[in-house]
Parts: sequence; structure tokens; C-alpha cells
Amino acid sequence: MLDTCFRSDMVAEITMQPVRRYGVDAAILFSDIVVPLRAVGVDVEIVAGVGPVVAHPIRNRADLDQLRSLDESDVASVLDAVDGLTGAGGELGATPLIGFAGAPFTLASYLVEGGPSRDHVHTKALMHSDPQLWSELCARLADIAGEFLRLQVMHGASAVQLFDSWAGALSRRDYERHVLPHSRACFDRVGDLGVPMIHFGVGTGELLGSMSSAGCDVVGVDFRVDLADAITRLGTDFAVQGNLDPALLFASSDALDHAVRRVLESGREAKGHIFNLGHGVLPETNPDALARVVELVHAARVD
Amino acid sequence: MLDTCFRSDMVAEITMQPVRRYGVDAAILFSDIVVPLRAVGVDVEIVAGVGPVVAHPIRNRADLDQLRSLDESDVASVLDAVDGLTGAGGELGATPLIGFAGAPFTLASYLVEGGPSRDHVHTKALMHSDPQLWSELCARLADIAGEFLRLQVMHGASAVQLFDSWAGALSRRDYERHVLPHSRACFDRVGDLGVPMIHFGVGTGELLGSMSSAGCDVVGVDFRVDLADAITRLGTDFAVQGNLDPALLFASSDALDHAVRRVLESGREAKGHIFNLGHGVLPETNPDALARVVELVHAARVD
Repeated sequence: MLDTCFRSDMVAEITMQPVRRYGVDAAILFSDIVVPLRAVGVDVEIVAGVGPVVAHPIRNRADLDQLRSLDESDVASVLDAVDGLTGAGGELGATPLIGFAGAPFTLASYLVEGGPSRDHVHTKALMHSDPQLWSELCARLADIAGEFLRLQVMHGASAVQLFDSWAGALSRRDYERHVLPHSRACFDRVGDLGVPMIHFGVGTGELLGSMSSAGCDVVGVDFRVDLADAITRLGTDFAVQGNLDPALLFASSDALDHAVRRVLESGREAKGHIFNLGHGVLPETNPDALARVVELVHAARVD
Repeated sequence: MLDTCFRSDMVAEITMQPVRRYGVDAAILFSDIVVPLRAVGVDVEIVAGVGPVVAHPIRNRADLDQLRSLDESDVASVLDAVDGLTGAGGELGATPLIGFAGAPFTLASYLVEGGPSRDHVHTKALMHSDPQLWSELCARLADIAGEFLRLQVMHGASAVQLFDSWAGALSRRDYERHVLPHSRACFDRVGDLGVPMIHFGVGTGELLGSMSSAGCDVVGVDFRVDLADAITRLGTDFAVQGNLDPALLFASSDALDHAVRRVLESGREAKGHIFNLGHGVLPETNPDALARVVELVHAARVD
């Protein structure tokens, strides 16, 4: 999986597949949360049935000293794919490409835990026991992820998405104190390029207001929060992205239609709305259900 | 594990261990979410490293017809333990026992999925595709869980806790429409007995207001929600339970002390506060950290 994320032909091909098959309005770069870590030489593998596994977790200053910054040459193959897709004669044509990177907290959690974690015990212990080291780790990760996003835009991406998978494991207080400044630093590295910036996390009902202050233009909303509630909370300065529950793709077509229409209706109240699932596509999803959703969304656009 | 939950000597012993070791102010019945299912003859096992596995998932009316109601004799051994602990000469003495049962939605999720699930795909598909069948399933589970709690109180429990592990997987809208009435039916079966009723779920920031309307007296707050925010949201009619992040037990003692004090301070604003973790104790927790927390909480009580 991770090797694939560094093969420009595969990145281009997999990025194009949903565009070809469903005619969606934008492509998102095929990548993985931990790509920027592998790019700077971290020994990380995606183990089947487990997720990303880091050989040498970072838990003290000596570990942190090993973490270097990201250089264009580290992600040359990824940027080749971006060039090819978005350049003159590229297969994407007028379809915009959304760049992608994992956010500092989620990257830090993988690095500190050494793998996926439900409870983030070592991560939170470090955050609270040595806030200085934690802050330096996240600052370095913000640098790495921010630079990765910046390079994607400079090579042709029309928007970026900063993906904080695990932010929902934190209370608002801890998020604001120990994470938000670093997500903001990430966006700061891209802000002057003038592309729309999307911020997404999972289980972030408590955090939407805080996440929106990181400098993004669009706030992704997971399926647990009613989109209408999210829009009320965020106010009129933000577009929203989301938030059909991916489990609804397994329901009857009547139930699915109804749910899609509700999301679309709620979205009309926001400054802007990128229709999307409220988290990733689940492995056993019937592709026909996805096609049906795209059709409904496109039909509503003409209404 | 499940067999142990039906051995009265083991239930009594394990229920007492934290009371003996830490001198906590109440015991909670040693049990498991799926005990009421096993009690009514559902073929369910707790598989190591997986969780509860149900041999024949319930996905249609014929399946549902197999699910019978719970009778006192089904949980005789559990009630023997309650009798022994709380009766005259019982080891608990004046320490109150909190009864325990899994809530209808969480029970339904195990039954419909056939095991633990991150995405609750089959459960949500049934809820949305056949709301009538869903409602009948949950009504029956409310009956089973409610009766189990009622019997625990009649045998000596001084309070009950209805535990909805998976409620946080739902949006508020779905929760209110498809789950809340059944949790309410559960509490209704116990309400006339006059004991305090606690309602706890995980990841329920969006749902606290809805859950509080199920008829409980105490709302459990998981660690993701700042306790002060929860109290503001719930108003002055409810006591709260929670909500130290169990990961903080792995932090330095300074960080732990600080976090415990914040929870205690926030809790003072509520009608009442049961200090607790904001979810279960994690397996690798150092018992000394737990002892330290109990000590801090007890010291604060005298302040």
C-alpha cells in the first residue's frame, strides 16, 4: 500500500478511478495519512489488518532528533503524478484535484504509539507529561505535512485537505492547547497560495468550532453530527463538507435516497457545501449505491 | 468471561475487589453488556481479542421471533451474588451496589452485526430500511435489559447504570428517533423503585441532551466532553458521572493530579457529581495510579 503511494503511475491511476467510474466533481490524491512520514525516512509499513506500524516509536528527545524535515525530492514521485494528472493534456482535464495530508496530531499519534491505537495512551501521556517535547514534535510534523500540501498545490492541486483522523479522541481543551496551533501552522504554509483549504476529522462534534479556527475555508463534518447543527455552530464564514453516513450505503434505496436528500437540504444553508460521505467508503460497499448517490447529488444541483 | 458473569461466587468476588483494594465509595456489579442476551438463551460467546460473538445474528422477523423475554430464573446466579453482597452480613456492608445492564441499542448492535463492529453497517441498514422490525427488536431488548435492572434493584442494588457503549455511532436525529424511546422504556421499568438511575454512553457529546431525557437522574460523560461543557448543556436537573480520561493514568503524577483536580472542580457546578473515569480502565494501567486518584478524590471531599 505505502509503496503504491510512491509510484507515480499507480497514484495517477487510482486517483482517476472514481472520477472515471462515477463522474464525481473533483479527484482526491490517492495517498495515505503516513505518506509524509515515510517520505522523511521514518520506517513505517502498512500491515494488513492492523494499519500503519512504525518500527521505532518517538517518545523522547533523542527519538525526535531523528525526525528530519521534508524536501521536494522526498515526494518527487507523488508530485510527478500530480503534474501528470493536472498538467496540459492530463487526464483530469478541468476536474480539480484535491491535495491530501495527515494532520500533525494524527501523525504524532502513529509515531508515538508505534501504530494505530484506540486509546492513544502514550500520545496523551507525552502530551500531558512533557508538553514541551510534544509541542516540538507537532511543530516538526506541521512543517512536514504543510510542506507536503504546499508542494502538491505548486504542482497543480486546486485545493487541499488536512485529515485529522484521531482528533476526536481529544477533549476541546486538550485539542485547543496541544493540537490546534500545529494544525494552524500547517495551513499557514499553504495559505498564501490562495487555494481552498479543507479540514476534516472524525468524531469531532466537540471540536468543530476549534478546528474551523485553524485557518481553513471548509470544515468537514463526520456523520455523527447533523449537518444542520454543524452549520449553526460554524456560522456563515465556512463551507462544509459531508456528511452522509457511509453505513447508509447498505440500506434500502428508499432509505438512502431520503438520507442523501436530507444532507443536500441541510447543506444549502451553509456558505458552500461539498457533498461527501461523513467518513470513508466502507470495504463491502456496493458500487451501485455510490453511483446512485452521485446521480442524486448531480440531479439536485440542477433543481 | 461470560461464564464467570453467571457464577455467583465469582461475580461477588470480582465485584468486591476494587472496593477492597481502593476503598471506592460504591461497587458496580461485575457483569458484561451481553449478559442479558446469554440469559435469554442467545448463543453468544466472548472471544479473546474480538469481543462478544453471536452465533446467529438477528436480521429478519423469523430471527426476532426467537428472542424471548427475561425471567428471574434466567439470572438467578447473578441475583444470588447481589443478595449475598448486599444482604445482612454481606461483604459490601454500607457500600452501595450499582446495578448494570447494556442498553437496547448496544445489545441490538451485537445481535444484528453478530459481533463488535466499528461501523454498525447491518444495524444501521436495518434501522433505516425496516424501522418497524428495528423498533420491535429494540422494544424487546428494552424489556430484557429493564427487567434485568429491576431484578438487581429488588435484590439489593442501590442504583442502576444503563450502559450504551455504541450510542456515539449515531447522529442525534437517528438516536432520538430510533433509540431514545427504547432506552426510556428501560428506565421506565425501574423508575418506580426509587433508586438513582445512571445513563452512560461513549462518544456522546452530540447526544447528552437527548440521553438525559430518557428518564435517568445521572448522565455519564465520556472524556471527550469537557465536564464543564456537559454541565452547561445538561442544566441543573442532572447529576453527572465522569470523566477523567483513562489515558491520563499513564501520564506523570503531576499531570494526573492536575487533571483530577480539574474534573473535581468542574463537577462542583453540577447538581451532583460521581467522580469516575470517562470510560473503562485500560488494561495496562498501573494500579498505583488508580489508588492515587481515589486518594485525591477523597481528599477533595473533605476540603
